[in-house]
Amino acid sequence: MQRAATSALATDLYQLTMAAGYFHRGMSHRMATCELFIRRLPLARRFLVALGIDAALHYIEHLRFSEEDIAFLRSVPAMRDAMTDDFAAYLRDFSFTGDVWAVGEGTIAFENEPLLRVRAPIIQAQILETFLLSVVNHATMVGSKAARMVIAADGRRAVEFGTRRTHPDAAIEAARDAYAVGFAGTSNVEASRRFGIPLYGTAAHMWTMAHATEEEAFRGYFAVFPKSSILLIDTYDTVRGARRAVQVARDQLAGVRLDSGDLGALAKEVRAVLDAEGAPNAKIVASGDLNEHSVAALVASGAPIDTFGIGTELVCSVDAPSLGGVYKLVEIDEGPGTPVRPIAKFSVGKGTFPGAHQVLRVVDRGVYQEDVVILDHEDSPTLATSDQQVIGLLDTAITAGRRVRPAASLDAVRAHVARGLASLPPAVRSLEPAVPGQPAYSVRPSASLAALIERLRVELV
Amino acid sequence: MQRAATSALATDLYQLTMAAGYFHRGMSHRMATCELFIRRLPLARRFLVALGIDAALHYIEHLRFSEEDIAFLRSVPAMRDAMTDDFAAYLRDFSFTGDVWAVGEGTIAFENEPLLRVRAPIIQAQILETFLLSVVNHATMVGSKAARMVIAADGRRAVEFGTRRTHPDAAIEAARDAYAVGFAGTSNVEASRRFGIPLYGTAAHMWTMAHATEEEAFRGYFAVFPKSSILLIDTYDTVRGARRAVQVARDQLAGVRLDSGDLGALAKEVRAVLDAEGAPNAKIVASGDLNEHSVAALVASGAPIDTFGIGTELVCSVDAPSLGGVYKLVEIDEGPGTPVRPIAKFSVGKGTFPGAHQVLRVVDRGVYQEDVVILDHEDSPTLATSDQQVIGLLDTAITAGRRVRPAASLDAVRAHVARGLASLPPAVRSLEPAVPGQPAYSVRPSASLAALIERLRVELV
Repeated sequence: MQRAATSALATDLYQLTMAAGYFHRGMSHRMATCELFIRRLPLARRFLVALGIDAALHYIEHLRFSEEDIAFLRSVPAMRDAMTDDFAAYLRDFSFTGDVWAVGEGTIAFENEPLLRVRAPIIQAQILETFLLSVVNHATMVGSKAARMVIAADGRRAVEFGTRRTHPDAAIEAARDAYAVGFAGTSNVEASRRFGIPLYGTAAHMWTMAHATEEEAFRGYFAVFPKSSILLIDTYDTVRGARRAVQVARDQLAGVRLDSGDLGALAKEVRAVLDAEGAPNAKIVASGDLNEHSVAALVASGAPIDTFGIGTELVCSVDAPSLGGVYKLVEIDEGPGTPVRPIAKFSVGKGTFPGAHQVLRVVDRGVYQEDVVILDHEDSPTLATSDQQVIGLLDTAITAGRRVRPAASLDAVRAHVARGLASLPPAVRSLEPAVPGQPAYSVRPSASLAALIERLRVELV
Repeated sequence: MQRAATSALATDLYQLTMAAGYFHRGMSHRMATCELFIRRLPLARRFLVALGIDAALHYIEHLRFSEEDIAFLRSVPAMRDAMTDDFAAYLRDFSFTGDVWAVGEGTIAFENEPLLRVRAPIIQAQILETFLLSVVNHATMVGSKAARMVIAADGRRAVEFGTRRTHPDAAIEAARDAYAVGFAGTSNVEASRRFGIPLYGTAAHMWTMAHATEEEAFRGYFAVFPKSSILLIDTYDTVRGARRAVQVARDQLAGVRLDSGDLGALAKEVRAVLDAEGAPNAKIVASGDLNEHSVAALVASGAPIDTFGIGTELVCSVDAPSLGGVYKLVEIDEGPGTPVRPIAKFSVGKGTFPGAHQVLRVVDRGVYQEDVVILDHEDSPTLATSDQQVIGLLDTAITAGRRVRPAASLDAVRAHVARGLASLPPAVRSLEPAVPGQPAYSVRPSASLAALIERLRVELV
């Protein structure tokens, strides 16, 4: 996996004004703990796949301010007074020195449970916020949508075709996120190069229309790609197109693609033509505004489709096009002799759990039961039966600024996601929208955490 | 404006397999015309602002294949046989040699009208497709949403705060797109550096919660930023927070931010406190899941909000999170002695206009009336009255591979968008969803184009 260094300025201005504030107020070194979590699942999601975690860790470890960054900040009117020589020197020497705990890349996640916990001097913890949210929100949004499509495809192949529907750089990451959760590959060549993802491609209408006849178009393509021609057959008449494709390529035809019409009915007709006319090994690829619901319906109907090419709905996560990940201060050291202060918010709909946490996932004979958010270092709860098992989701990823848990390989992430999906009970895997107020999953605070929340609520109110 | 060179591999594999196909079939040099257009407006849009055009032109002019790109393509199984030495040499020497016509960056646009027209050897026209769609679809999606927010803000300031809700690189472009259509600025520091956009920042809850009391937090921030403190006052009690902010900063208070609650009612109470207690010049910034509808309601209610901070809804274009821009072959030369062949598609919902086009916008005393898509070089239609004026939207941008229309400055784009928005009649500017089948705008083919469509339909069917 190759990742470019990200500009230290790819952040919100206020992170840097607040950093200058901590610096000039002599607060830089107070140790703070911040946690990143998804506040609420969209109604269209029953679970999430946490992605972007390894990219976040990479950013934390490599974040530096260049001389050009510092010179630019000196030119920003709102920063000018705060950009003293000593603060500029601080930025010049910046590197993260704290500790980070994180869930594994590709872990199944729900709301209100930390995916990443940073413990560091507050100035450092603050500077990280925007980028961590950006990378985790986007990757988790795309990956969570993709996972639903993998479930819908039910073992058939899903391939990411969405590059043209999102920002060019976001597209490369989206291809990676889709592959991470079980897509078979992508059409994005750069994503393949950068992440080692298998590449898929067929042909487009333009190829066919650039030739005088469909047959000529097919003959031309097959002549150049005798081993890998997947011919697009819906430009004029899909079934006639299928017949022509077999006439041209015979049993060497790798496949055909349908991109319009009633994909289920056409797939059956086309499969019959391919089998009857001598191309029984040719695969059928279907595409055209597919989402998890249309894929599930095609699979349920028995449509002989081998590969689903999925674009727009995946990369734009059309039914849940944003994710409300937040990054909150949960604990702060206020100086020598003072106990660590746990921090909670009680705003309606924006409440947060005070203190530093671990998430325990309870599974019963391999099946997800519930998540319990505990105060860090709290003992595990007693399990109900000997069939149950508890897994701590967060583990040490960075210690004193150094990565101690290397980035997982994409193969390892795929295996981790596959195990996670397999552990979900049917109600959580379901593609139906959630029922408001009746989540299919459970995330609850432990008794000790609940007691702490109650104590703080009384103090504050 | 500074733009990095984009990887030539940031495309769909099939563009490169088809390119190899044209090359090996001896078709590379056939001249083709392709047009990029938005097939259908989302129901939640009554107009679009075409953005990403200058980025597309930059890409076309600068696209090159590096040795590393070529080596990677040789390693792709589907490409291996086609990557002969002569095709590798072609890619090594690749640069765009054709002509491009385009609408100006920031032009108001509707469906089925070309925003960009490429005339080039077909192999070149093909290779461009994916990236052009990616950059225009994303920028136009964000800019079109942003324009609705600018209309809603009705002269008040709108600032882009959405970095954390989208991919980090998409966020930088989104800040630029929002500014291009009339936002006052962004919180994204890198976007400010890259595009010269004004920067805005306030403070976050974390700053307040990191201090023992709100007053201490305000005093600390004001001490460091005596000229530019915009204090976030909703952490505990918004009105009490406003009072504390004035006590701390007096008439030097730059502003306050409200991020929760009934923003309209709170803004009125807070304005009264600021005025009564000695900070009449302090501005009120409101944020928190705002979109064009909530902004319009706040403005209509007379809420004394000076600046709207807008994030998620803008950068994710939540109500229309994808745009169906396509790039279609419309004309091809089939060799010496053969007339240029116009190409049309008649699939239901996917029909395209054959031939190379210009778009004429008819305005009457400055007000948009309709767009007429004509065959290129066709004469302008006769105008109904002397108050009417016709503007050709596409002009020459690249000639023989060289940019002849330089990228517009962001200031020029802003002025162009402002004129465009001002020219729209109320029904097109309306924030209400479109009525299906009754668009508020009109895009129609000229009589000659309609005749050509009819002739081809008869020939094909």
